Parts: sequence; structure tokens; C-alpha cells
Amino acid sequence: MIQVPSLILDIEKCKRNIETMALKAQKHGLIFRPHFKTHQSLEIGRWFKDFGITKIAVSSLEMALYFSEEWNDITVAFPTNILEIERINLLARKIQLNLLVESIETVQFLSQNVDYPVGFFIKIDTGYHRTGLLPTKINTIDEILKTSMASKNLNFKGFLAHSGHTYTCNSKADVLKIHSQCVNELSILKKKYVTMFPDIKASLGDTPSCSLADNFGSIDEIRPGNFVFYDLMQAKIGANNMDQIAVAMACPIVAIHDDRNEIVIYGGGVHFSKERLESEKDGVIYGRIFERKGNVWGNIVPDAYVKSLSQEHGIVSIPGDQIKNHKVGDCLMVLPIHSCMTANLMKRYKIEGRKDILMMNSQ
Amino acid sequence: MIQVPSLILDIEKCKRNIETMALKAQKHGLIFRPHFKTHQSLEIGRWFKDFGITKIAVSSLEMALYFSEEWNDITVAFPTNILEIERINLLARKIQLNLLVESIETVQFLSQNVDYPVGFFIKIDTGYHRTGLLPTKINTIDEILKTSMASKNLNFKGFLAHSGHTYTCNSKADVLKIHSQCVNELSILKKKYVTMFPDIKASLGDTPSCSLADNFGSIDEIRPGNFVFYDLMQAKIGANNMDQIAVAMACPIVAIHDDRNEIVIYGGGVHFSKERLESEKDGVIYGRIFERKGNVWGNIVPDAYVKSLSQEHGIVSIPGDQIKNHKVGDCLMVLPIHSCMTANLMKRYKIEGRKDILMMNSQ
Repeated sequence: MIQVPSLILDIEKCKRNIETMALKAQKHGLIFRPHFKTHQSLEIGRWFKDFGITKIAVSSLEMALYFSEEWNDITVAFPTNILEIERINLLARKIQLNLLVESIETVQFLSQNVDYPVGFFIKIDTGYHRTGLLPTKINTIDEILKTSMASKNLNFKGFLAHSGHTYTCNSKADVLKIHSQCVNELSILKKKYVTMFPDIKASLGDTPSCSLADNFGSIDEIRPGNFVFYDLMQAKIGANNMDQIAVAMACPIVAIHDDRNEIVIYGGGVHFSKERLESEKDGVIYGRIFERKGNVWGNIVPDAYVKSLSQEHGIVSIPGDQIKNHKVGDCLMVLPIHSCMTANLMKRYKIEGRKDILMMNSQ
Repeated sequence: MIQVPSLILDIEKCKRNIETMALKAQKHGLIFRPHFKTHQSLEIGRWFKDFGITKIAVSSLEMALYFSEEWNDITVAFPTNILEIERINLLARKIQLNLLVESIETVQFLSQNVDYPVGFFIKIDTGYHRTGLLPTKINTIDEILKTSMASKNLNFKGFLAHSGHTYTCNSKADVLKIHSQCVNELSILKKKYVTMFPDIKASLGDTPSCSLADNFGSIDEIRPGNFVFYDLMQAKIGANNMDQIAVAMACPIVAIHDDRNEIVIYGGGVHFSKERLESEKDGVIYGRIFERKGNVWGNIVPDAYVKSLSQEHGIVSIPGDQIKNHKVGDCLMVLPIHSCMTANLMKRYKIEGRKDILMMNSQ
């Protein structure tokens, strides 16, 4: 029985999300290298093996170490942190490790300090302006490649992008416009360098594009992560339907205030994270409520939403007479804004009728 | 040496913050019951014992269990979660446990299910409108008291408030206005019930009021938590100066983009939390940068701030020519927006020249 805020996983929905993306990659002849930062779980990772997946992406070297127990081709999709050179060598000795490079300083450091073969992608900024080189920076790209070729352990793998600016889109058309620019820019780079490096790949990663696009041009690899659970943020973009969301928080009701139509739940920023969503009708929200009928996840309750979060409290706005259906000691089911951040805080998944699924750093 | 994002604690600043608040409580004849949800550490907790502190507040029963190893008077400053009745009885058997009650349903449940003596405060809503009974709800208060008196294990301890609406204040005057209303409302209630319950206490808790107020009327107890570290949010309110902030994140620089005056750090929402602050000059910010000279925490870098956070990345805006002072592989020192949330994610404190201080659920 649920006693404290708990992250509930619907295994069937999750496996269906994996299957859908795996079949899509197959249909388009793409390497499917799922990003495991969303679920951070060896057990959930194994579900991908049923679809022939052998390569993954992660967001830190710590996570690469955790998954290296069962996976031997891992891309750390984060700019290389040269301070972790010991971990890099530990991993490079054990598995096919791929790193991201976007500066001459980093490739110089790696060329002098890696003791085993390491692959690297050059990170390209396709408009998100978070990390990566603009595709016009050919001189820097050339210098990175020149530096890497002087090292016997550095192997150029190709160009990698993450169009994270799709996360602020509000329509499929907007996502596809960004995606198409990304495909175009990576294709031009690949074409320019493929004669010199015949095996290079072009890799892209955002869940909205991977969910919505049907044209991948000369892209070789996709690295979506969030699709494994989806969430309200992706639903707002149009990347998923509500019934594809595979995780929800079960939160005990600790107080009911009918005079202001609000329910206080045990479930705050330390459980959900403080990710927020601008909702057209309700302003800033931190989650949505759905009905639960036994083991079946029912409909979204219209006009009910998490209005605010403090450290351990959540305040849920419940319209009209519906507040009378709830009492102290019940649990409310809440869909998270950003499933990656919520899972990262909760550290384990509860499933009806079986033992919990553990994550990296589970207690 | 720092290799990954790390939470650095300045022990001297922290101990000074504890001393300042302890002396203030002493001066005003107040019971000082610090809220330990901010630091969540047995070791830091011990520093309070030097000032004669014997009672604490926490935000969950799990945290009460953790601290019950060394503390025997604990208030769980959160509406009682009746689903955790087993933990309640476990704690009530071992220590003086105080719970919060704000409904007849909860007090009825407790009166039937607690097996050992338990204290309870009635939670009063002094204007924050998160939890608690409005002070005008005398009928409900009377009914709660009547129900509790029928139970041999429930002991009424008094009235407790948390004026969390001081967190959105931008001046001392605004904080004091809220504080004064809170003092007034709790005093009226205390006066009304003290003949019947001669030992009851009035307790308030927000760090801004406890830091800024000099008039506590007939309040008996204060429960501030955040003051132990303070942060940028409290500094904006005026509760602390920048040089009182006792925790900072050290974040490796992984990329530098001089063309847009931005540095990419390893340090994102999974390290800082996504707490944000509206800054007059810089818009929404997620942290501020300061200089470090050896072990001394130097000045805030004007116009430098964390502009955005994703899961593992932070983007730091650095003005003018200063970007040239930094290189990949250095660490940036970042003051957090909300130290409670950042500490909760980081799970341990790094201190120059000694071993880490652990927290509840440290790995």
C-alpha cells in the first residue's frame, strides 16, 4: 500500500512506447541509441534489448559506469568533463565509449590523456544555442580533426546534435521546421567529411523530433530519451497523447480545504522537481490529476491541476463539487510535468503487484 | 580535487549563522526549535547542541526517524500523513513526537490509532493559504480539542504557523507587516485557550521573519530552517547579506562560447533544482557567480548569472571581457537560489581539507 509519495510505472505503456520508437527507427533504417538518463534503470534498460538495441546514450560518466555493467557501446551525450579523466580511462578500457567534443582545448587534452581507444562526436549547435559548434565553424572542426588524428586513441565518429529548442514548440509544424533545419545542417557536414572519414554518422536526439518527424534524410542515428515515459511537457508540444504517459506520482492527501477548493498533498519539489508548464487556461501548473479505477489509469480530471509546490507540499486546485469525492488518507494520482526530473528525484519505480524497479543510486 | 558538481560548505559561516539565530532567540526568551530539513545532516545538527538546543523540527516522518538517533523532541512540521501510522507509533514510542493537525478527520484517526503519547499543534493559516485553519475557525478548533481530550495519548501543545508568504516579499517592511499579523493572530488564540491548557505554546517558523523581526509578542517558539545556509532567495527578501550564504556549488566548466559570452557548466536541474528568481536587472536567474581566491569566497561577479538549467547543463552568462579569465576544466563557484532544494539533491557537503559531511540518504 502507498504510504508516501511514490512514482508509479505502467509497464505496458512504457513497453509500448519503446516498441513504437524501435519500429519507427527500423522503418527509417536508423540506429536507435536510446538516451537512458530518463529512466536510469538497468532493469528498464533490458526491455530495449528485446528490440535488438545494443547502443545507448547517457548524460554523465557516472551513469555510463552504472550502465557499463550491461552495455558495451555508450555515448556520453554531454560536453566532455576533462576533470573526470580517470573515469574516462576506466570506461574506455572496458567498453566502446563515445564522448562529445566542441573545442580544441578538449580534444588536445583528450589526445594527451586517454590511454585506450575512445570515439568522439563533434557536437553541432543547430539552433538551440546551449552547447556545440555552429555548423559554419569549419576551421574549428578542421582543427579538432587534425588534433585528433595525431592521437592513436581518438576516433572520429561523426556529428551529433540536440535540437532542444523543440521543447518550447507548441505545434507539430514548429517541431518539424526545427527538425528539418537540423537534418539539413548535419547532412551538409556529413557530406563534406564522409570521403575523408567513410564511417561517420550523423546523430540527433530530441524526443519531439523523433516522435513527430517522418523524414530523416541522411541522418544515421536517433537518441531520444523522454519518450520512454513521456509527460505533460511533451504532451503540450504534441509529441504524445495523455494515454501514452507511463509514469505518475501517487501522493497522499493530508488536508482538504473546501472553502478554497484546494487539496494539500504530500508531494512537493523534492519529489516532482519544480518543473513548470505554462498552461493556456490555468496559468503556471506543476502537474495534472487523473482518476484511478483499480489498476486502470482513468481520465484526466478537467480543470484540476497542481497549483504550487513547496519543499514537501503540493497544492492541488480541484473544481466545483469534486472536492467532496476526496478525503484525508486517500492518494491523488498526478502526471508529472517532466518525467526525467521526477524519476531522477524518486530513485525507484513502484509497480502494482510486484517488487520495485530500482534506479542508479536507489537507496 | 573537485571533479563533478559539488556542494561546498563554509563551516565558519554556517556556525556563525547558527550562533546569531541562537543568541537572538535567547535575547527574546524564545524556544529555538531549528528546522532541520535544510541541512538534513546529523553532523551539522550537532553544532546546534553547543547552543543548548534540544528540540528540532523536520518536514517528514522519514526525517524524524533519521534524527531520532540523536534528538528526542521532534516536531514534524507538516500536516500529519495518516497513512504513515506505523512510523508515527515507532517514533512516539521512542521520543517526544509532535504532529500537526488541521482537521477533525485527522485528530479522530490519531485518537483511535496512536499507541503512545503524542503531542500535537493545531496548524493556523496566518495568510499564506497553504495549510492550516484560519484563526477564525473556532468551532473546528474546539471540536479538534474535544476529540483529542477523549484520547489518553493525544496532548495539545499549542498553535503553530508558518508565514510562507514572506518568501515573496521584497523589503523588510513587507516581512514585518506579515510577521506582526502572525504574532497577533497566534497571541489571540493562545490567550483564548491558555486558561484551559496552561502549557500551550505559540510557534512560528519562517526564516525571513525570524531573521528580520525584533518583536515576538507572546510567541514562545521559533522554527527557522533556511538561515543555517541562507541563499539568493533570502538575500532578495533582505533576510541575509551575500556574505552570510554558507553553501555554494562548484561546477566544472565544460565549454566556453565567447561569441555569445556564455560558459557551459556541468551543473543542472538535477544538482541545483530548478528554483528560479526574478531579478530586476537580469530577468529569471538560477544562480550567481562569485570569485574564489584559494579558500576565501570572494566577491559576487557583477552581471554574471546562471541563465538557464537543463538536466545536467547550466548556462552562465558572463559579461564583457571576463570570459577570458576562464577555461575548460576550471570550476565556477555558484550561489544557489534555494539552498534547501540544492542540498536535498546533492546529499553531501564538501569541505576544504576534511572528509565530506553526510546527509540523510547519502550514498
